[in-house]
Amino acid sequence: MNQEKNKDALVCINGRFTPPEEAVVSVFDRGFLYGDSVYEVTLTYEKVPFLLETHLRRLDNSALGIGMNLEWSPTQIKDLIQRGLKHFENDRLYIRIMITRGAGEIGLDPGLSDGQNLYIIFKELTPQPQKYYDDGVSLITAGILRNPKKSVDPNVKSGNYLNNVLAISQAKEKGAYDAIMLNAEGNVTESTTANIWILENDCFITPPLEAGLLGGITRATLLEIAKKNNFQVKEENFTPKRVCGAQEVFITSSTREVMPVTQVDGQVIGNGKPGPRTRGLHDLYRQYIQEVIGQEKKKVPWNHD
Amino acid sequence: MNQEKNKDALVCINGRFTPPEEAVVSVFDRGFLYGDSVYEVTLTYEKVPFLLETHLRRLDNSALGIGMNLEWSPTQIKDLIQRGLKHFENDRLYIRIMITRGAGEIGLDPGLSDGQNLYIIFKELTPQPQKYYDDGVSLITAGILRNPKKSVDPNVKSGNYLNNVLAISQAKEKGAYDAIMLNAEGNVTESTTANIWILENDCFITPPLEAGLLGGITRATLLEIAKKNNFQVKEENFTPKRVCGAQEVFITSSTREVMPVTQVDGQVIGNGKPGPRTRGLHDLYRQYIQEVIGQEKKKVPWNHD
Repeated sequence: MNQEKNKDALVCINGRFTPPEEAVVSVFDRGFLYGDSVYEVTLTYEKVPFLLETHLRRLDNSALGIGMNLEWSPTQIKDLIQRGLKHFENDRLYIRIMITRGAGEIGLDPGLSDGQNLYIIFKELTPQPQKYYDDGVSLITAGILRNPKKSVDPNVKSGNYLNNVLAISQAKEKGAYDAIMLNAEGNVTESTTANIWILENDCFITPPLEAGLLGGITRATLLEIAKKNNFQVKEENFTPKRVCGAQEVFITSSTREVMPVTQVDGQVIGNGKPGPRTRGLHDLYRQYIQEVIGQEKKKVPWNHD
Repeated sequence: MNQEKNKDALVCINGRFTPPEEAVVSVFDRGFLYGDSVYEVTLTYEKVPFLLETHLRRLDNSALGIGMNLEWSPTQIKDLIQRGLKHFENDRLYIRIMITRGAGEIGLDPGLSDGQNLYIIFKELTPQPQKYYDDGVSLITAGILRNPKKSVDPNVKSGNYLNNVLAISQAKEKGAYDAIMLNAEGNVTESTTANIWILENDCFITPPLEAGLLGGITRATLLEIAKKNNFQVKEENFTPKRVCGAQEVFITSSTREVMPVTQVDGQVIGNGKPGPRTRGLHDLYRQYIQEVIGQEKKKVPWNHD
C-alpha cells in the first residue's frame, strides 16, 4: 500500500494505538475472510465527535442484526476515541469504528471465532469540495439492486459492502458522483453511502426504512428538524422517475450533511441549480450541529478548555 | 487471535512467504473494509492440488463479476502454490487463494485502490469426520434468503459472505450441519458452502445456475460423471418440500466431495441412512480424483518423484 495516502492516520487496535503502517489485521480475521464485521463512521466538529452515542447505539444495533453481542461497551469505545483524539490538533477528524467477529479456525460458523477485534481508524477529514454544494452533484440509477432485507439487511452497517462498491463503480464509469440503488420492486432505497430525498409540491420525501436502506442518523435528524419547523415531510416510496421530476433532490449522510443533487440519469433537476429548500434545510442542520457541539463541549470528556 | 489454531499454516502475501502469526493485512485493505475481494479454495490429494487450473479460471471469473482484472496470472499463482507446497510434508492440504482490490484512500470507489493484494493460505486439511459419510448429516432451511443475482451474484466467490454466515448460524443454533438457502421465489439454491442434490425417481437433480448459486466445480464434475455413466440427471428448480420427500439427498463441494444428507428440517430422508446412489456417485467421483491426480503427478511441477 502507498502509505502516503493514510500517513496522517492513527489506528487503535483492541485498545492499542498504532501508526497506520503498523495497523494490520490477521489474515485469519473473519472481518477479512468474510466481511464478518460491523462499523460506524463519525466526524468531529471543533474536536468533538458528533452524535457519537447515537452512532454507538447503531453499531450495537448492526451487531445484533448479525448475531454479535459486542464485547466492547459504548463507554469503553468512547474512552478510546477520547484518547485517540488527543493525538490530533485538527478540528475535523474522520473516525471509523469497526468490530469484527475475530479470528479462529477457518470456517463460516461464527462459533469458530476466538473473540471479537476492535479497530478504530482516526484520520484528518478530507472535506467534500465546496463546489458540490455550490453546483450540486449528479447521480445515476445503478443497474445492480440493493441487497434485500431478507438476505443481508441494508440497515446493518457491516463489512459486506460489495453491493455498494459495484453500484458506485457504475456511477464512476458514467462520470457521476454516486448511484441510486433500487429494490426489487423498482423503488428507490438510498445511494451507496447516503440517504436520498426529493422535494415534491413543497413536501420533503425520503423512502421508508421498509424499502430496505440504512436508517441514517442524518436522515433521522433531518426528519426531526423538518417536523419541528412545520415543513411538510413524509417517508414514502418513490421511483427514479419521480426523482427526475422532483422540484429538488438531495442526499444526506454524516460526511456530506445535506448535499444538493442537480442531475439524475442525465436529466437536469429543477433549474439545474441547488434548490432553496435544500439549502434552507442544510442551514437548519448546521444550526443543529452548532447547538449539539456547543452542549457537548460543556461536558467531560470533550471539554478542551 | 489464538494462533494455536492456525500454527500449521503458511501464508504467501504478494509472493512473500510468512508464518501465520505474521500473516497480516493492512486495515486500509478494501478486502478488510468492504469484503472487496475474490477467493478460491482447493485441496491437495497426494500433494497435488486438485483441478487447480479450473479453480484459477473461476477466480478470474469471480473477479470479472466484480469488475476486477486480476493483476496475477494463473501461472504466477500456480508457481507460488508450487513453492508453498514444498514447505509441507502432508499429502492433504487446504489452499485458500484470495485477491483483494487493495488499499488506498478510504472510500467505496474502486478507483481509490493502489493495486491488488494476493494472499494464499496453506494449511493442513482437517478432514471431514468419517461419521458424516457413514451416517449422513442434517440440514435446515435457513430463514434468510440467498443474495439475489441482481444484487450480489452468488456465482462470485467474494469476500462478502455474511449472507452465508447468517444462514449457517441458524443451522448451528438448531444443531444442524448446514443450511439450505432459498431464493426469493422459494426455490432451493445451495447450502452455505456446498451445492445440493436430490434423487427423485432415480434421477439426480440439482438446481440450475439461474436459481442464483455458485457454479460448483464438484457440481460440474458430477454432472459430467453422471452423464458419462448414463445416469438420469437434470438441472431443475425444486422446493424444500421436494427435498424432504426425495429418495436421497446429498451436498457437494471440493472439501466435502459427496456428503449424504439424512435429515432435513427434522424430517428423515428415505430410511434415514445414506442412500446407495449417493454412495455410488461418491465412488465414481473418487475414481475420477484418482485418475486426475494420477495424470497430474506425471506432469511438472507436481511431479514429486
